[in-house]
Amino acid sequence: MDIDDLAQRIQSGDRRALARAITLVESGRADHREMAAELLDRLAGSGRQALRIGLSGTPGVGKSTFIESFGLMLTGQGLRVAVLAVDPSSARSGGSILGDKTRMERLSRDRNAFIRPSPSQAQMGGVARRTREAIALCEAAGFDVVLIETVGVGQSETMVAEMSDLFVLLLAPAGGDELQGVKRGIMEIADLILVNKADGALKETATRTCADYAGALRLLRKRAQDPEGFPKAITVSALEEHGLERAWDEMQALADWRREHGHFDARRAEQARGWFEEEVHLGLLARLERDPALKARMAELGAAVAEGRAAPARAAAELLAALEGR
Amino acid sequence: MDIDDLAQRIQSGDRRALARAITLVESGRADHREMAAELLDRLAGSGRQALRIGLSGTPGVGKSTFIESFGLMLTGQGLRVAVLAVDPSSARSGGSILGDKTRMERLSRDRNAFIRPSPSQAQMGGVARRTREAIALCEAAGFDVVLIETVGVGQSETMVAEMSDLFVLLLAPAGGDELQGVKRGIMEIADLILVNKADGALKETATRTCADYAGALRLLRKRAQDPEGFPKAITVSALEEHGLERAWDEMQALADWRREHGHFDARRAEQARGWFEEEVHLGLLARLERDPALKARMAELGAAVAEGRAAPARAAAELLAALEGR
Ligand SMILES: Nc1nc2c(ncn2[C@@H]2O[C@H](COP(=O)(O)OP(=O)(O)O)[C@@H](O)[C@H]2O)c(=O)[nH]1
Ligand SMILES: Nc1nc2c(ncn2[C@@H]2O[C@H](COP(=O)(O)OP(=O)(O)O)[C@@H](O)[C@H]2O)c(=O)[nH]1
Ligand SMILES: [Mg+2]
Ligand SMILES: [Mg+2]
Repeated sequence: MDIDDLAQRIQSGDRRALARAITLVESGRADHREMAAELLDRLAGSGRQALRIGLSGTPGVGKSTFIESFGLMLTGQGLRVAVLAVDPSSARSGGSILGDKTRMERLSRDRNAFIRPSPSQAQMGGVARRTREAIALCEAAGFDVVLIETVGVGQSETMVAEMSDLFVLLLAPAGGDELQGVKRGIMEIADLILVNKADGALKETATRTCADYAGALRLLRKRAQDPEGFPKAITVSALEEHGLERAWDEMQALADWRREHGHFDARRAEQARGWFEEEVHLGLLARLERDPALKARMAELGAAVAEGRAAPARAAAELLAALEGR
Repeated sequence: MDIDDLAQRIQSGDRRALARAITLVESGRADHREMAAELLDRLAGSGRQALRIGLSGTPGVGKSTFIESFGLMLTGQGLRVAVLAVDPSSARSGGSILGDKTRMERLSRDRNAFIRPSPSQAQMGGVARRTREAIALCEAAGFDVVLIETVGVGQSETMVAEMSDLFVLLLAPAGGDELQGVKRGIMEIADLILVNKADGALKETATRTCADYAGALRLLRKRAQDPEGFPKAITVSALEEHGLERAWDEMQALADWRREHGHFDARRAEQARGWFEEEVHLGLLARLERDPALKARMAELGAAVAEGRAAPARAAAELLAALEGR
């Protein structure tokens, strides 16, 4: 594979090249990893920046429908939109991809849009790494908006929020017994809550649900990176395409405010530095694990610590001494 | 220092030995670190377990007053109580310690209580490590309850929550304009919210504040490690000593439920394993930093990544290759 050529094609907007590059970053093979790292390094500093929007919500809340309507609205304004799905369980729930394809049919045929479903688990060499590298590729390819969708299994929302500029939570109208509640940790990272399905018979419930969450958000202290009034809760209808422009206005207002106040770039720099440190950490651990004796010792010591038989600091010191001895 | 002797004294309940040991774990000196690790390792597996309760709240909410009343109630029941303060800013806000001493006067003279203020910043070699090691020492010393108090600067609540069995948040009665809101991230980790100062003229406001937070908590989904009804919000008065028994009952009910359902031990094992991995991580990084050339290269690469000039994976690979070359 000619990395130079691939990099050039991606930057010139070749969608097949972008798709191939994402397949490359998804691979766990050592030679692929090396090529991926080289490609990403070549594309770094392209100066292109998309607005990265994380989007989460439980199955059935209307994520695919929203992405279709919202994405088409954006491409209608001449914007180029990439959609990346993060679903740590996609290998198991294979059906959802089929559902998504029919639900995002128009968007997937739009030449200003690029949709990439979650890879099957077998291919995944770290969901987080794959996702942030795919985002970097979409940015280098000149997309204006990158939507990163997650169904929220395990820690996936936090992970997506950590690689996004904005984090949007889609909620369904519900009250009383139906109320499932927001997964813990999400209220804290949401910049914008969209109560979807605010149409037909559900409209009133949606308005009430929205008011409840708006009230709960007011009990949280404002973060430094938030202007007055954020985080916000509003109602939308992805199906009837109501409130989508308002949602986009809010996202832009928030992003603009953060850009003006230096939070936008500061956050990106911090994210990038964090990824570097994580890569160094993973690399150091990989060195440990490459040695079967050290790997076994680490497992033993980890178990002893978990069972309270050894203290963390001493166990770590022992492992590092063993490493030093090699 | 005779580590064997120190370990024995701690286990026999010698408070001066405990105080000395905490001073040892607070030290950043390499020889002290080694002794501390050995001491902690010797005490591991003592089989003693305290209930670790994290407690947070903004300055003035009544933490010291609460700890005094609540601690005295516990010692009155024959329980031994240790109090550890975590204040990453204590060197700056020196006044608070003086305030605490007068506010916890009776508890500090109680022979079933042990109070350890936050070390001054100069002595601190990692607040998290110091705190969890101090907790381990208090446990080995046979305390039944360890209260870990934090004023909540930076990430200190999350840190304290991660080393506690239960996390309690103290709030002041407030409404409308006065409402400061809960710091983001805290609502997610609180097991029990205590609205303090529910007495005199503030009683009604406290009841309303409590209902507001109880409502907000209901909008959050139940966690696997929570029984029905948790997290909970109740009112207390630390000054008039109202609601303290109810608070203790709730804490015990939650801890018992988690014990019965295996969450208690599972969480502790996970915490211990996390600390071990963190110590290994810090040790590996220390190896990198011991080499001035590698350290400088890491700083350069980190800056390049933060500025978008280099990709994280490639920068990390370069650093690790340099390490390999030594
Ligand atoms: N009434 C109404 N139904 C919607 C809306 N958005 C999505 N739906 C329906 O909700 C169901 C799940 O939608 P889908 O987009 O697949 O949700 P996802 O699982 O979050 O991707 C489908 O039957 C949609 O037609 C909306 O705004 N209003
Ligand atoms: N009315 C009332 N005042 C309280 C209560 N608890 C604490 N206070 C007062 O609130 C102020 C701050 O208390 P303190 O315990 O130092 O708060 P801390 O900064 O959180 O440790 C002091 O004047 C206390 O007397 C309470 O339950 N009711
Ligand atoms: Mg979907
Ligand atoms: Mg105090």
